[in-house]
Amino acid sequence: MRSDGRSSAALRHIRITRKYIKHAEGSVLVEFGDTKVLCTASVEESVPPFLRGKGGGWVTAEYSMLPRATHTRSPREAAKGKLGGRTHEIQRLIGRSLRAVTDLTLLGERSVLIDCDVIQADGGTRTASITGAYVALVDAFRWLVAQGTIAALPVREAVAAVSVGIVNGEVFLDLNYVEDSRADVDMNFVMTSSGRFVEVQGTAEAEPFTCVQMDEMRSLAMIGIERLMAIQQEALEQ
Amino acid sequence: MRSDGRSSAALRHIRITRKYIKHAEGSVLVEFGDTKVLCTASVEESVPPFLRGKGGGWVTAEYSMLPRATHTRSPREAAKGKLGGRTHEIQRLIGRSLRAVTDLTLLGERSVLIDCDVIQADGGTRTASITGAYVALVDAFRWLVAQGTIAALPVREAVAAVSVGIVNGEVFLDLNYVEDSRADVDMNFVMTSSGRFVEVQGTAEAEPFTCVQMDEMRSLAMIGIERLMAIQQEALEQ
Amino acid sequence: MRSDGRSSAALRHIRITRKYIKHAEGSVLVEFGDTKVLCTASVEESVPPFLRGKGGGWVTAEYSMLPRATHTRSPREAAKGKLGGRTHEIQRLIGRSLRAVTDLTLLGERSVLIDCDVIQADGGTRTASITGAYVALVDAFRWLVAQGTIAALPVREAVAAVSVGIVNGEVFLDLNYVEDSRADVDMNFVMTSSGRFVEVQGTAEAEPFTCVQMDEMRSLAMIGIERLMAIQQEALEQ
Amino acid sequence: MRSDGRSSAALRHIRITRKYIKHAEGSVLVEFGDTKVLCTASVEESVPPFLRGKGGGWVTAEYSMLPRATHTRSPREAAKGKLGGRTHEIQRLIGRSLRAVTDLTLLGERSVLIDCDVIQADGGTRTASITGAYVALVDAFRWLVAQGTIAALPVREAVAAVSVGIVNGEVFLDLNYVEDSRADVDMNFVMTSSGRFVEVQGTAEAEPFTCVQMDEMRSLAMIGIERLMAIQQEALEQ
Amino acid sequence: MRSDGRSSAALRHIRITRKYIKHAEGSVLVEFGDTKVLCTASVEESVPPFLRGKGGGWVTAEYSMLPRATHTRSPREAAKGKLGGRTHEIQRLIGRSLRAVTDLTLLGERSVLIDCDVIQADGGTRTASITGAYVALVDAFRWLVAQGTIAALPVREAVAAVSVGIVNGEVFLDLNYVEDSRADVDMNFVMTSSGRFVEVQGTAEAEPFTCVQMDEMRSLAMIGIERLMAIQQEALEQ
Amino acid sequence: MRSDGRSSAALRHIRITRKYIKHAEGSVLVEFGDTKVLCTASVEESVPPFLRGKGGGWVTAEYSMLPRATHTRSPREAAKGKLGGRTHEIQRLIGRSLRAVTDLTLLGERSVLIDCDVIQADGGTRTASITGAYVALVDAFRWLVAQGTIAALPVREAVAAVSVGIVNGEVFLDLNYVEDSRADVDMNFVMTSSGRFVEVQGTAEAEPFTCVQMDEMRSLAMIGIERLMAIQQEALEQ
Repeated sequence: MRSDGRSSAALRHIRITRKYIKHAEGSVLVEFGDTKVLCTASVEESVPPFLRGKGGGWVTAEYSMLPRATHTRSPREAAKGKLGGRTHEIQRLIGRSLRAVTDLTLLGERSVLIDCDVIQADGGTRTASITGAYVALVDAFRWLVAQGTIAALPVREAVAAVSVGIVNGEVFLDLNYVEDSRADVDMNFVMTSSGRFVEVQGTAEAEPFTCVQMDEMRSLAMIGIERLMAIQQEALEQ
Repeated sequence: MRSDGRSSAALRHIRITRKYIKHAEGSVLVEFGDTKVLCTASVEESVPPFLRGKGGGWVTAEYSMLPRATHTRSPREAAKGKLGGRTHEIQRLIGRSLRAVTDLTLLGERSVLIDCDVIQADGGTRTASITGAYVALVDAFRWLVAQGTIAALPVREAVAAVSVGIVNGEVFLDLNYVEDSRADVDMNFVMTSSGRFVEVQGTAEAEPFTCVQMDEMRSLAMIGIERLMAIQQEALEQ
Repeated sequence: MRSDGRSSAALRHIRITRKYIKHAEGSVLVEFGDTKVLCTASVEESVPPFLRGKGGGWVTAEYSMLPRATHTRSPREAAKGKLGGRTHEIQRLIGRSLRAVTDLTLLGERSVLIDCDVIQADGGTRTASITGAYVALVDAFRWLVAQGTIAALPVREAVAAVSVGIVNGEVFLDLNYVEDSRADVDMNFVMTSSGRFVEVQGTAEAEPFTCVQMDEMRSLAMIGIERLMAIQQEALEQ
Repeated sequence: MRSDGRSSAALRHIRITRKYIKHAEGSVLVEFGDTKVLCTASVEESVPPFLRGKGGGWVTAEYSMLPRATHTRSPREAAKGKLGGRTHEIQRLIGRSLRAVTDLTLLGERSVLIDCDVIQADGGTRTASITGAYVALVDAFRWLVAQGTIAALPVREAVAAVSVGIVNGEVFLDLNYVEDSRADVDMNFVMTSSGRFVEVQGTAEAEPFTCVQMDEMRSLAMIGIERLMAIQQEALEQ
Repeated sequence: MRSDGRSSAALRHIRITRKYIKHAEGSVLVEFGDTKVLCTASVEESVPPFLRGKGGGWVTAEYSMLPRATHTRSPREAAKGKLGGRTHEIQRLIGRSLRAVTDLTLLGERSVLIDCDVIQADGGTRTASITGAYVALVDAFRWLVAQGTIAALPVREAVAAVSVGIVNGEVFLDLNYVEDSRADVDMNFVMTSSGRFVEVQGTAEAEPFTCVQMDEMRSLAMIGIERLMAIQQEALEQ
Repeated sequence: MRSDGRSSAALRHIRITRKYIKHAEGSVLVEFGDTKVLCTASVEESVPPFLRGKGGGWVTAEYSMLPRATHTRSPREAAKGKLGGRTHEIQRLIGRSLRAVTDLTLLGERSVLIDCDVIQADGGTRTASITGAYVALVDAFRWLVAQGTIAALPVREAVAAVSVGIVNGEVFLDLNYVEDSRADVDMNFVMTSSGRFVEVQGTAEAEPFTCVQMDEMRSLAMIGIERLMAIQQEALEQ
């Protein structure tokens, strides 16, 4: 039994609230238990320099925590004047995950900028970000279709993410902060609706892990992601 | 009649939601119509270098907009590596306003850091920030009292703020974004519950203003701030 | 009686020296007592990106203190790698004040950059900067007219600024550093020659101020600015 | 057959040259084919602030490419004034990998800083860095033992890393640059001598990958890392 | 004959005005013709970390140009967020030159910070800076002696600097801007009152120079510096 | 006799290895005893803004030390976010030295970027950099000729550099680190094959130096540079 009473294979309470912010083309508040992330999708009619004139589009992401999203206040990266390594790592992961399911040619020479701002953190902010950002991205694509800018949704399949970890020798799905800080191993899986992976990241915080443990974690992640996709789908149908 | 049907002396719909975030000692979502600002108050057991060893406390503020709080996305200051002039101006204003009603000696050698993060912007983000931050600050002070760290609330009186402007020759209270962008004059008043001012800032965006107009704006602001203080009081009593 | 023997409504000794620097289109050394600011106006045949192709011009300002302008040496912002909040606040104020009296359409698609560099500081550097910068700006406009670039001076009226404060319950005009550091309230007024305001900024450093006190400060400021404008006029006629 | 004639399960020519630089406590030139990385280990008698007074040590890493290590010259991060996201990601990976096999308590309150500077890049710079850095780290530990500073080598087991990828549907070990730029999937495995993983990172650059493909890549990686460890061992015995 | 009528071995009109700024322990306006530099010396009761506890003092310098010191306006380094290479080069030169004639042991564990701010530039700003800074430094040392902080002036001998250049095959002393921009060779000599050198920097801007030319330039520089030292001496005796 | 047994007029063992890196158009490892610098030359088909459309080319240089090139590790400038003054000074010196012997008109509107990265430092890194960079530059020019981009080598003459210093009253050629740190005077000479100077920089670290000493140092430098040029020539003929 886990600290919050969940079984090892249970997700936290997941909530996806669409149209959370009025200005953005897509905006979603995603909640994985007490972890709350605001994901917005902004359409821009330009692409980065290395893509100009090639006809294809771009999807990229930025990630940030509000200073008091965490238990003790973290200084703002804007005040420090530079992004930390963790921020870089996470925003690159979110961007790659979304591009993996986007048909950039169909999108045309324009960009979607995803902003993931963590309002409250309780573990799993990167996996919540990817899961919520996908929904915001689809909303931005729908807006582009509604505007008549593009003919069809440039999405090949859905994408969602979940963390799995080994805590005291047991494999747990969707770690909260307390579990995460005690975990020996922490793996993040990003999967598509066809059951394939676009990103896998595993880190032994304390003790290295075996092939068998990796397989166990992967199985649990696949179960979790399937459920997350059902919740994404439901949100998109409302 | 104004674009949103309000009378010239009417505030927008104001909402103050306390305990919005679980980690912070004080946290408030303040809404002035569609303007939504998350204000958190974080207690730290230290003071800036220039105050060390002098026994007094400090209250300071940081202000930021989420990138898509606005109609078109604004680049993050963290990504640009420096704070803009407008951000500096606003966060200094918030800090001064709150210190003006705080008994820093009673607070003792510790700091309260106020973070005002604009989730959605529709005009008046700085006045909403001050009005909400006061409530978050009181909650942090109450937490300090409840902890037994300090004996009494180090607050001398309440503080709130409102904008007033001249649009097409008419004086309007609490401008929304559309009004603000058309205003000839924009004044922000920060007032205490004893009916006195801690900050007054007036700017002629287009046409200079006369003494008479300044007086009219001040009268309207005083009415507005009185109402805001009733709402603050109500929120603090819940 | 004040520390330097002035009456409460007296300005310090004011001096405006034109053509102080040989390269700039306009350059003025302005002295408010021991406060000495070098204001230069530089014409550039370009405008910021947001104005390109719209036919109008721009006036903007930068402000800086030499490291030893003050009693103890302040580190250079260039060495620290970023501008402080106070610098941002002041240079935005100077820019807005000058734009308020400039006919930007008449100026045409070009910019005037005002640089205010404080050589020696003794209170009131921002009001001295505005007062001196106006004269430098007119000189730059005269240069443009003399060159045949523009047909007429793109100035609607004069602008000057002064500080007023409450020290030990008394209202004083044009505070020097010693007075400023003891003031309960500090207000800066920026006024045009038609007797109207373009900027008003009041801050209660210690004790909030009442409507009556605000009115008293305003009256004194109006007297002071009238005198400053006579001195500006005289300088411009030499 | 691969572009350079290797079989799919073959490593490139691997070379580990110890004591490459005279000043560093450990220094290794590691070559994976044309990829050449200089790894140095520097001992410092201090630890980061969050570890002070706790008795344990620290191992951390920095990574950089010389500007012309790559086919076209890349601007220096020192000249741009900030580290890119890729650099952050890689240096965090190297640091975590080495800490995973270090007994930080045995190391005592001191740090080893690993610098991985890529002299020439041809794919696999991060896996070469980890593989070479381990040898440099052991040399620094031996130096500490020889100095009598610590009693025993604070190493629990060896660590090495290799990349695996899917190119045109085939799984290849240890991708060179040409293969890497054409790969559909790219996975990096960091393994210890007990056959367990400390880091696994897989990214679908083009097409998502299945469980079966992940298993194939893992098998190949395990073969490759075993060989790398034999080469590390040999180098350390010279 | 030179553009301004001087003979090849003539200095421009040199003026040294002491006590130019009221706050600084030493402050000098130095003029080499139209080149005007404000040099201030600030005493601080601390030394840089690498000197702490060793009993000796430190002299260092910062150099900056006001934006409109030059013919066209140069952007502020504070606004760009970093010092340029030329600034670094010059301020290091000034610091080394002054330290060469200072008895740092006699100065005791304190620092003198020299600030050289170019008000107007017309060639030779670095040599004017060194020449003026020496006088400001002596004034700061006299202040320390007058305070009773140190027993004697910690100066071993005087130091001054001048530029020499080859323009159209002729060797000229103390180049102004027009000459400097046409010079084939530009040499700066920093000399002490004992006729010895502390810094020599020669650069062939267009054509390399011979031993014979170097000797000619050196002879001219020695004449110029002797005259500069007489002017320094005179200023210090007033 | 010197610490390493050399006579006062002897260079250290000099080695120039061409084609050290496979990607760069020119790449040289230059060794002055234990000082090892990797110099690469990168051709770019563009010039800096101030040269655009004028037909001429550009040669510029960047210089950096690997963190552990020195006895104790130096923090990376990329991590600190800015280049130090010493780096600026040296890279400007290298760039000027190479431009002095390049026919920029013949080079045409393109740039050669020289990167000097110090692998191991033992004194004289700037003079080794210039000496090696010249060879890398010639290789890049040869590549341009071989490509048919330019008709002839745009080199007017060879350039090399050496340091000379006064240690315990004796004049030594090509100081190593131990000598350099004890030297009273340190001079760097950059000379061309016609026996003329493009840069001369002398600094009295402790005691000023006389004309006679300067002449002695110059004579020794001329001998050293002649030998360096023979070694450059030999390397270029292989």
